[in-house]
Amino acid sequence: MNKKMIIYTLGQMLKIEGFLMFLPLLVGLIYHEQEAIYYFIVGLITLVLGIVISHKRPKNTVIYAKEGFAIVALSWLVLSLFGAIPFWISKEIPTYVDAFFEIVSGFTTTGSSILTDIESLTYASLFWRSFSHWVGGMGILVFVVAFISDAPGTTMHILKAEMPGPIVGKLVSKVTVSARLLYKIYAVLTIIEVVLLMVGGMPLFDSLVNAFGTAGTGGFAIKNTSIAYYNSAYFDTIITIFMILFGINFNVIYFIIIGKGMNALRSEELKWYIIIIGASTLAITVNIFHLYPSLIDAFRYAVFQVASIITTTGYVTADYGQWPLFSQGILVLLMFVGACAGSTGGGIKVSRIVIYVKNAFSEMRRMLHPHSVVSINFEGKHLEKSVINNIHAYLILYFIIFCTSFLIIALQNIDFTSAFSSVATCINNVGPGLGIVGPTGNFSSLSWISKIVLSFDMLVGRLEIFPMLMLLSPSLWKK
Amino acid sequence: MNKKMIIYTLGQMLKIEGFLMFLPLLVGLIYHEQEAIYYFIVGLITLVLGIVISHKRPKNTVIYAKEGFAIVALSWLVLSLFGAIPFWISKEIPTYVDAFFEIVSGFTTTGSSILTDIESLTYASLFWRSFSHWVGGMGILVFVVAFISDAPGTTMHILKAEMPGPIVGKLVSKVTVSARLLYKIYAVLTIIEVVLLMVGGMPLFDSLVNAFGTAGTGGFAIKNTSIAYYNSAYFDTIITIFMILFGINFNVIYFIIIGKGMNALRSEELKWYIIIIGASTLAITVNIFHLYPSLIDAFRYAVFQVASIITTTGYVTADYGQWPLFSQGILVLLMFVGACAGSTGGGIKVSRIVIYVKNAFSEMRRMLHPHSVVSINFEGKHLEKSVINNIHAYLILYFIIFCTSFLIIALQNIDFTSAFSSVATCINNVGPGLGIVGPTGNFSSLSWISKIVLSFDMLVGRLEIFPMLMLLSPSLWKK
Repeated sequence: MNKKMIIYTLGQMLKIEGFLMFLPLLVGLIYHEQEAIYYFIVGLITLVLGIVISHKRPKNTVIYAKEGFAIVALSWLVLSLFGAIPFWISKEIPTYVDAFFEIVSGFTTTGSSILTDIESLTYASLFWRSFSHWVGGMGILVFVVAFISDAPGTTMHILKAEMPGPIVGKLVSKVTVSARLLYKIYAVLTIIEVVLLMVGGMPLFDSLVNAFGTAGTGGFAIKNTSIAYYNSAYFDTIITIFMILFGINFNVIYFIIIGKGMNALRSEELKWYIIIIGASTLAITVNIFHLYPSLIDAFRYAVFQVASIITTTGYVTADYGQWPLFSQGILVLLMFVGACAGSTGGGIKVSRIVIYVKNAFSEMRRMLHPHSVVSINFEGKHLEKSVINNIHAYLILYFIIFCTSFLIIALQNIDFTSAFSSVATCINNVGPGLGIVGPTGNFSSLSWISKIVLSFDMLVGRLEIFPMLMLLSPSLWKK
Repeated sequence: MNKKMIIYTLGQMLKIEGFLMFLPLLVGLIYHEQEAIYYFIVGLITLVLGIVISHKRPKNTVIYAKEGFAIVALSWLVLSLFGAIPFWISKEIPTYVDAFFEIVSGFTTTGSSILTDIESLTYASLFWRSFSHWVGGMGILVFVVAFISDAPGTTMHILKAEMPGPIVGKLVSKVTVSARLLYKIYAVLTIIEVVLLMVGGMPLFDSLVNAFGTAGTGGFAIKNTSIAYYNSAYFDTIITIFMILFGINFNVIYFIIIGKGMNALRSEELKWYIIIIGASTLAITVNIFHLYPSLIDAFRYAVFQVASIITTTGYVTADYGQWPLFSQGILVLLMFVGACAGSTGGGIKVSRIVIYVKNAFSEMRRMLHPHSVVSINFEGKHLEKSVINNIHAYLILYFIIFCTSFLIIALQNIDFTSAFSSVATCINNVGPGLGIVGPTGNFSSLSWISKIVLSFDMLVGRLEIFPMLMLLSPSLWKK
């Protein structure tokens, strides 16, 4: 275990987080907010601490899978622990547990909130909250990898543990280069969304934070009624399109950008992603038609909510808690499905779902014809048995965490639907659930134990289950 | 596809079912019930039909996996289609769909009921209902195999598709012999339970039907308040012990009977089964202590409900719908866990759960130490990768059916908890759920579509997912 390298990397992270806190400071200064000072103080302390910890690069920079998993898991934990402080010492969020929940929800791009009145927050804190989505979105580590040019090889395992999805596709041969490329695509798409929102008349600040929430598939809004506040078909359309876009594998987006659109169209995962969005939208539109004045309206709210939930963004334009159970059921299922691998979205991921189903049907064929040889292809490539077993192990660990979390939340004796959906929405990094944590509710009334468990679930979900669990495994820390 | 052999076997089934219907006829005659005549008429027709269909044994008796799956799935379907008729033509259950739901629930040993007033039924129908549990319990096909001595080899695939659980253990070398042996153990245990209940003062009829419900892990009661009606610690204790007993792998029980108790104690599945029952009982006892006058009472109700749900029996002595969510949550999880493989219980089965968890943790080790060779043992034997993949495929198909069923039920717009738990309780062959289908409720208010879907779920669950699904697969019927 190369502990020195882990600590060194965590130091680098803190340095960057310290710098990033000067952005909300700037926002606070622009809006003449006294609370901005806290971002200066905490930012400075974090920066100095980072510099102290990482002042000397270890001689041995070789890291293996073990170190990779530890770095990823600890980074998110440490960044959240420090990122929560400004909310807390500014007294904008009264308890540290709540502040921690809120920033974990930010960095994991979940968007679940303990705030009962979002609009009472300072601009500085609203910015920090949404900006944490943007930072978390592409994975703070890809972000870091893109900026800290390190020796080739040392960063590989970090990227592997970080990129959401079962298969890591390298855009170009070198990891650092590909991280930078991902980052550029991410930034450019964000800027385009900001511009398009401003064109429609949305103020700069709102456009910026809403774009952060979309890009990271986070979903923190700055209004109590989320995106419904703007009540604009134009904004709904733009945000719907960009939510869907940020839920696509960035490899595919890269192919489209460099003019290899045909390669993109051959993506099996993209095909199923679009089919699921289309079918869900259709089913919900028909199911909620009677609640809205026109078919167009029903479609508009259906497609927005479907895109928001499957991409695990969590923005809301309609109180789907009032929709029929069938529509709510589809949305809950979409929470579990999640977005495409290699996107900023959470959930189990479309690619895993496709592989699960393919394997299950091929197993049925094998049972009917015991002597036939059955193999599974995905994205045109033969899938190794070890890959299939790995994604099944993923599912089982996912359920173990899900059930354990559910039981701990249930100790609070809230209703079944609220308890179930709060775990579902947090572990899948969606944001809102059903019942008391539904689209018009929030997580404020949960106990501090529930909030800590759900924070853990958000981290577990965001980091693709394994790294956070390994952090708890004694075998990680053994020599 | 040896269709002649499939039809021949179905004919044999009908013959037996026809005979079996003369038992409720006898009960009806004893109690001077006019409705008994319907069991005579339907029994006779079923018997004659069976004789006509199976009058000539096909020359080619060779059957493969395909035919095995088809026979199992069609048998349960055909037996239920005929078994429902007496309820319906006697007008004791007004609609055929309700009668079908009730008898499917019987043969699949589920115990979910559409009856709002069970006690208004005739003794003949109460007997037929509970007796279907007993027949279904050990698998009607093992039952048949035990009576119809066929050429060795022809029955193997039937047994394989039938025996609940991932691994088929042969008690003795010949299948027919082992089926007879299972049947004897099953019958003797049932008789012992009947005697013990009668010793405590329960009337013969009640003892008999309640023992049928326990042995088949079915749970149809003949009182509206289920076992709570008797309000006796003695009956609760006896039934609790026998529910737990019938949830154990019959191989293990066989070892105990022939004096190889040490072999039984080495069973990993038994160990986990007992640990899960113990831990759940403890947790619930502590959680519901404040609701009952003494710790003993809390324990008595906790252990009964835990045993009832994990063995998927579904008898009720306490309205757990009034318990705190934590206790309800444990019971819902136990529904999914289910009993041991090779028992009469349903659910996913303890052995599968143990294998899932073992494989997931071994995969975590493999990721941390990529060059280590990790293999999984279960019950002292190395598990082949193909077995592990098969039980994962099982889980995925299980979820596909679960989610599809949930969405169809949700079309009715009942509450989330009721819809979720009605599917959970039916696919796992438990009986009661939560909400409107909770321990004091029933399935009467569901739509006929929901009832058909849930009937399908009960069959799917009871037959270990694959056979019923294969029935729907065109590749089964292709030459």
